[in-house]
Amino acid sequence: MKRICNKKAVVLLSGGLDSATTLAIAVSEGYDCLAITFRYGQRHGCEVEAAGRIAADIGAADHKVIDIAPVAFTGSALTDSGIEVPKDRCIDDTVSAAIPVTYVPARNIVFLSYALAYAEASGAFDIFIGVNAVDYSGYPDCRQEFIAAFENAANLATAAAVSGRGRYRIHAPLIAMKKAQIILRGISLKVDYSKTRSCYDPDSEGRSCGRCDSCLLRLRGFAEAGLKDPIAYKK
Amino acid sequence: MKRICNKKAVVLLSGGLDSATTLAIAVSEGYDCLAITFRYGQRHGCEVEAAGRIAADIGAADHKVIDIAPVAFTGSALTDSGIEVPKDRCIDDTVSAAIPVTYVPARNIVFLSYALAYAEASGAFDIFIGVNAVDYSGYPDCRQEFIAAFENAANLATAAAVSGRGRYRIHAPLIAMKKAQIILRGISLKVDYSKTRSCYDPDSEGRSCGRCDSCLLRLRGFAEAGLKDPIAYKK
Repeated sequence: MKRICNKKAVVLLSGGLDSATTLAIAVSEGYDCLAITFRYGQRHGCEVEAAGRIAADIGAADHKVIDIAPVAFTGSALTDSGIEVPKDRCIDDTVSAAIPVTYVPARNIVFLSYALAYAEASGAFDIFIGVNAVDYSGYPDCRQEFIAAFENAANLATAAAVSGRGRYRIHAPLIAMKKAQIILRGISLKVDYSKTRSCYDPDSEGRSCGRCDSCLLRLRGFAEAGLKDPIAYKK
Repeated sequence: MKRICNKKAVVLLSGGLDSATTLAIAVSEGYDCLAITFRYGQRHGCEVEAAGRIAADIGAADHKVIDIAPVAFTGSALTDSGIEVPKDRCIDDTVSAAIPVTYVPARNIVFLSYALAYAEASGAFDIFIGVNAVDYSGYPDCRQEFIAAFENAANLATAAAVSGRGRYRIHAPLIAMKKAQIILRGISLKVDYSKTRSCYDPDSEGRSCGRCDSCLLRLRGFAEAGLKDPIAYKK
């Protein structure tokens, strides 16, 4: 799948379904993709291993795993084993309801800033992020308003932009898609979803719980796409 | 100097003259200050030690040193020993000229994003940064346009802001001040500038070179303030 061109992009790759699809889209558009994955104390650490498999499979030009000091990302069910990951919620309610305890403080602005620094140091002007604002969990940093505001800040923050060498673009190709559409797009690009992990609370063998918001959205996406999710679930 | 109140602020503290003054201003305004210092592979690592002394001296409620993976901040004279730090430049020219090689890619947006995550996790809504756009080295991320754009992005990125619990404010109290004014303000707040370090290229004993842009701006600031810089310089 890998094509070589002179356009570099930095791609945020979590190891989940959305970011794998985003990487495939960036590769299909002819970018040389510098994938980056963050290890930030998340309880679903198996997604970091998944990211490595996905980067190789889809054909990223490079893949780096970056450690983020956990001091910043506290108080979330994803980073604090004392806070329980909600299970068995009605997904249609959660999408429009209050921000859940799985929200990680300011995570996407930190990830995008880091990606921007890496892009500037690498001579890339394109950054891809797999956020989506339709079938999501109510996180504010997955919305178009935020992405646009960040892009504006990025173009004021950096020497490469201010000196006129280029303009940074934050690509969020999934932002207006439903999960089923994302999956169908990925299938058309030959994404192997058996390599991805979405669960917020996997067991010690890396099997998904099937009950957290992320699993429920994923399972509904596959069902609506008329496909079977190829990964293993508990029980 | 320390006062106790219920208003918390996160303060970016590099160990230099500007951020020490900024911390003193935040403390004088009654904030409980959570100071953070980044270790990002800078050649002037002695400023990190200086930051610890300053935080204690000025009375920060807490001080953390955070490691930033060096992958992001490459290609700068401050992080790459193969790029020479410019010396003996005419400071009036540099302030209006091209962005120098001591620019670190996207550094302030990464620092501010990290500070934002820490603020949200800590229940703070105020972030202080010691950038200034007058006597500075031509860095784009020290300008008011950038600070305003970041503040806007911060208030769209975070659950605490979006859910109406508060609004994030990025305070840049030095942004319109000349170096001499900053020093006089700090002196009035009893900042001990002998504890600060500004040099981009100190020797192995931590003595400042006296010739890089940062030293030249500092020395001129003290001269214009009619004061003697209390730190040691080489030779």
